[in-house]
Amino acid sequence: MSPSPSTTVDLLIVGAGPAGLALANWFRDTDITVLLVDKKPGPTPRGQAEGLKSTTNEIFDSYGIGPQITAESWRLEEIACWGMRKDGAEGIVREQVIPDRVEELGKPRETMLQQSRVEHHMLQNILPHNNIEIRYNTIPVAVEVDIACGHEADAYPVTVWLKKVNNDATTLNGHATNGINGHESNGQMNNDQNGHYTNGTDTNEDHTFKERVSAKYIVGCDGARSWLRKQLNVILEGDLTDSVFGVVDMVPKSNFPDIRRVCYLRAASGTILLVPRSNREVRMYIPVESGTALPDPKDLTFDRIMDATRKIIAPYTMDVGSVSWWSAYRVRQRVGNYFSRLNERAFLVGDTVHTHSPKAGQGMNTSIQDAYNLGWKLRLALEGQVRSPSARQDLLRTYESERRPVALDLIAFDKGFLKLFAAPSARFDTEILQALKFTTGLSIRYPPSCAVQLPKGVEQLGPSLLKADLVPGKRLPDFRAVYQADGVPTWMHKRLSATGQFRVVIFAGDITDPARLERLLVVGRYLGENESLKHLTMTRPGKQPLVEVLVVHCADRDQVDFLALPEVYRPWSEESGYDYCRVFADVESVHDGHGRAYERLEIDPAVGCMVVVRPDGYIGAVLDVDDVDGVRTYFERNSL
Amino acid sequence: MSPSPSTTVDLLIVGAGPAGLALANWFRDTDITVLLVDKKPGPTPRGQAEGLKSTTNEIFDSYGIGPQITAESWRLEEIACWGMRKDGAEGIVREQVIPDRVEELGKPRETMLQQSRVEHHMLQNILPHNNIEIRYNTIPVAVEVDIACGHEADAYPVTVWLKKVNNDATTLNGHATNGINGHESNGQMNNDQNGHYTNGTDTNEDHTFKERVSAKYIVGCDGARSWLRKQLNVILEGDLTDSVFGVVDMVPKSNFPDIRRVCYLRAASGTILLVPRSNREVRMYIPVESGTALPDPKDLTFDRIMDATRKIIAPYTMDVGSVSWWSAYRVRQRVGNYFSRLNERAFLVGDTVHTHSPKAGQGMNTSIQDAYNLGWKLRLALEGQVRSPSARQDLLRTYESERRPVALDLIAFDKGFLKLFAAPSARFDTEILQALKFTTGLSIRYPPSCAVQLPKGVEQLGPSLLKADLVPGKRLPDFRAVYQADGVPTWMHKRLSATGQFRVVIFAGDITDPARLERLLVVGRYLGENESLKHLTMTRPGKQPLVEVLVVHCADRDQVDFLALPEVYRPWSEESGYDYCRVFADVESVHDGHGRAYERLEIDPAVGCMVVVRPDGYIGAVLDVDDVDGVRTYFERNSL
Repeated sequence: MSPSPSTTVDLLIVGAGPAGLALANWFRDTDITVLLVDKKPGPTPRGQAEGLKSTTNEIFDSYGIGPQITAESWRLEEIACWGMRKDGAEGIVREQVIPDRVEELGKPRETMLQQSRVEHHMLQNILPHNNIEIRYNTIPVAVEVDIACGHEADAYPVTVWLKKVNNDATTLNGHATNGINGHESNGQMNNDQNGHYTNGTDTNEDHTFKERVSAKYIVGCDGARSWLRKQLNVILEGDLTDSVFGVVDMVPKSNFPDIRRVCYLRAASGTILLVPRSNREVRMYIPVESGTALPDPKDLTFDRIMDATRKIIAPYTMDVGSVSWWSAYRVRQRVGNYFSRLNERAFLVGDTVHTHSPKAGQGMNTSIQDAYNLGWKLRLALEGQVRSPSARQDLLRTYESERRPVALDLIAFDKGFLKLFAAPSARFDTEILQALKFTTGLSIRYPPSCAVQLPKGVEQLGPSLLKADLVPGKRLPDFRAVYQADGVPTWMHKRLSATGQFRVVIFAGDITDPARLERLLVVGRYLGENESLKHLTMTRPGKQPLVEVLVVHCADRDQVDFLALPEVYRPWSEESGYDYCRVFADVESVHDGHGRAYERLEIDPAVGCMVVVRPDGYIGAVLDVDDVDGVRTYFERNSL
Repeated sequence: MSPSPSTTVDLLIVGAGPAGLALANWFRDTDITVLLVDKKPGPTPRGQAEGLKSTTNEIFDSYGIGPQITAESWRLEEIACWGMRKDGAEGIVREQVIPDRVEELGKPRETMLQQSRVEHHMLQNILPHNNIEIRYNTIPVAVEVDIACGHEADAYPVTVWLKKVNNDATTLNGHATNGINGHESNGQMNNDQNGHYTNGTDTNEDHTFKERVSAKYIVGCDGARSWLRKQLNVILEGDLTDSVFGVVDMVPKSNFPDIRRVCYLRAASGTILLVPRSNREVRMYIPVESGTALPDPKDLTFDRIMDATRKIIAPYTMDVGSVSWWSAYRVRQRVGNYFSRLNERAFLVGDTVHTHSPKAGQGMNTSIQDAYNLGWKLRLALEGQVRSPSARQDLLRTYESERRPVALDLIAFDKGFLKLFAAPSARFDTEILQALKFTTGLSIRYPPSCAVQLPKGVEQLGPSLLKADLVPGKRLPDFRAVYQADGVPTWMHKRLSATGQFRVVIFAGDITDPARLERLLVVGRYLGENESLKHLTMTRPGKQPLVEVLVVHCADRDQVDFLALPEVYRPWSEESGYDYCRVFADVESVHDGHGRAYERLEIDPAVGCMVVVRPDGYIGAVLDVDDVDGVRTYFERNSL
């Protein structure tokens, strides 16, 4: 090979869509170098995904971009179910209107914002950080991974050759890109005799100018037709479905009365899902054909889609104002057989490893959530926080063990959900409510691992319920509490910003009781002074602690002597004074009512508990309120 | 005079601080050309004002920048009152904690954000608009106004000569600035024999290169030492007070337990006001000296201020972490004798015409509110919406008749408020609550005028109460309601964006009652079809109506046939379909509870009413629910 320029980065991300950008956001305010490459010439101008689930909005909160995204989004409040007339006559009638609400969340379940704006905000959030670079018009053409190095911290086992796909390449926030035009390679990777995985075609055949990038890890966020997935020999397993749908974004000219509500319009020829968008537009998913002899979606015309629409929505009219986008598709329901490969040096995220119906609004959400799950693990590994190489690999393995079951569940759900659209169901509204809970992620529970530890003596948990409960492996249910120091209310996930920190949250009960207060003091002194823990929990100059210890009590705030608490609950720094943001009360707030956190999380104030929360807001362990050994064990097992 | 480059603009604003920027924000999305000049080299890097009252936040909502500002702000929730020990011993004790809440508002009363960030967001909001230009490093050196032209729409009676104050002038969003260095002129304006007001010194004496600007109107937002105020011979009337204060922004190192609450610390030597800021800082206003032989504030040292602080806060400690800003001042309580001059061609806004204690957080708020009051009137005049010249002048005159009494009331309040700091009061907490209501603007009621019309036969109203009531001249109390079409809840002032439009809000009651529905249909048809009104209320291609007609009913939404309502309530446009954003319901929302608008505004659902809301959200008229003549009269009197 001719000499080529060479770059070394910690992390190479292929694809700068929602998944790639969400992953990169974990590395703001770090020294970790990240390079994103994307074959597109720039940010997506117009995206296709749209709905944001509350969990995804919590991720944006943790990235500090929640307010902007919320301000631009449109909330969904109600679902109208329409069906065929009972008297057998033609036309649909409104059967009922149900609130688009999941009580367990305590906040809106879903908001609408188009993918391009979501990408915009995530991109703006990383641009100021010089350690993160994005190159558009750039593709990888070959990849080689040296798995012999194991999980040594200083190794750069990934080698990738990058190429520009045209001369107008855009570089954001970084040095200029070298490279020339070339074609994309589809070469398959082969395992050679030296324990190297090498792309066997491109590096030998193509003598055009390329850039060589060495990286510690590579992540494929390059979508359903992922190049990296092919290189890693990962197979998508699953089927094509037997329905062809049209999807249309348009200004409707219609006398249909529920046009600004989420509607399920069920007629003999199928079910339309209608969702209001901003700018007075609606999105509709319209079943056009089903059966065995299906047309190629490419052959469907807009007129045919609208004919199918009018047939279902009759007797109401549906004329077309303006159309901003439309498409036709046949759903593939498939999941990758691997999510990580090559000794956990290569990962696949989002659409690269799962495809399904867009109707439940799970594509962009699941992609972002995949990336959010992986990001903190890579960050901890790359920051050198995890001391033992094997613990590093154990942690990184949990990406696949946690996210692949989520994708499989999603496909199983999707099959049932699509059936709802195919045939009338007597239990339609119950099933819709179950679907709302499922798509909000209430059923997600990661299996036991180093990052999810079950109570001593417990080997496995029962089936996961569609509940916002305090269980290891589930997401910490969001709740509101007020700051002890100033009475300002906050949602907890907003407080848990994506800094890479774990949190130990102590639900201490009513600490005006002297025994409970004493217990809290003892626990706080242990967490701040124990030899195995103090390097994690205590602030040192210029370095944030890896573990923040937080307290949520339910006592009268004016009876609590904040400064008498151990330092781990209110650390002092010469630059910025006391940290007043670690102690909370579950009490009535001045303007926003009572969060009722203990009640919602089913915590007995007389007993309390202690929860280890991972950097991604999932529960690592649920412990007795004074089980400091449990805390120590959790972090020791992760070699932190 | 030597030839000079010349520019013509509709509106010249002197000063690009909070007042000037708030004024300029009214002219986004118009064809009106606006030039702001400021002697500063760029946006304020660090500002001194800080608190934002809810009314001011509603203004930001109407400008579309509410979410960004709210996200950055810190809410105030509680006020702690500390006083001297009753037993005569040394030191202060906590007397009580009261919620920092005004029930009438239904939302947080005040948030904290420093002036520089407030300016930043207002500036970012105008930069994309090519009709608005900002030139820094630029001062006016002479002004001339030809008042002989009356209020002809096409006249440019204002002539101003501009000069750069250094060579590094910054121009944002506009063509380059010509000009050279020069000194600022203090020449007084003289009335010459031709009916021209001319600056008599500078244009004759200074032969350096200048730019001549012709404008229809000029507004001085150039602060307490306003150049324009001097040119207009406007005098500030009032006194210096007899106290010298220190003000400090710092990270405290203190064992004072309420350091993150708003605190009034009342000791024998005076009262400290302590307010928490972001970045763990506090702001404190500290009385240092009072009496007749006062030191010049310039001579006060930081150490002396901190000594005074420690004397009051004892027995608690108060060490200094880091200090980001401090100053000392003696309050001047003064109001300009005129707010507009020269045939309503020149206006003075904000600090140019009122100065007072900063402690009630009224400076930036009142300045922005002044500008907000003036802006829409200038916009209507400059857009040619007001057809008769005399009506145009009548409307512009209301700026002074409405805002000067507010400034006078503010000074009266400030005198009482300062007394609270000087001497202990038995009724301290009642007085604080009254003060909270006052500073939130609940007492503001503009006097009758073309823009504020009293009911037929009513000559004057009784005294204004500290109430959020539905009275002509008061601000429309903000309330939440849900959109008929989709159930999304909104605060009304967020909906009333600053487009220059009036709104007629019909509180129609429960329109499932056929008689009430029929009344609403009749009113709607009249408002949309009457010859005097339809040019105002109906959308025409490419032109928004000057008057939006909104409906707030309290009926079951599913019983309301939206499309059967007259077009004025749900206009159709070929480009963007139906307008679904004009009909609201006062009902329970899916996620945010019930707004109880009828109850809060004391509207009998069986009777209803109709309210004319001005473009600035103040009430122009309160009418019977079917008083369409009252609506017609309101707009006819304003020659609209």
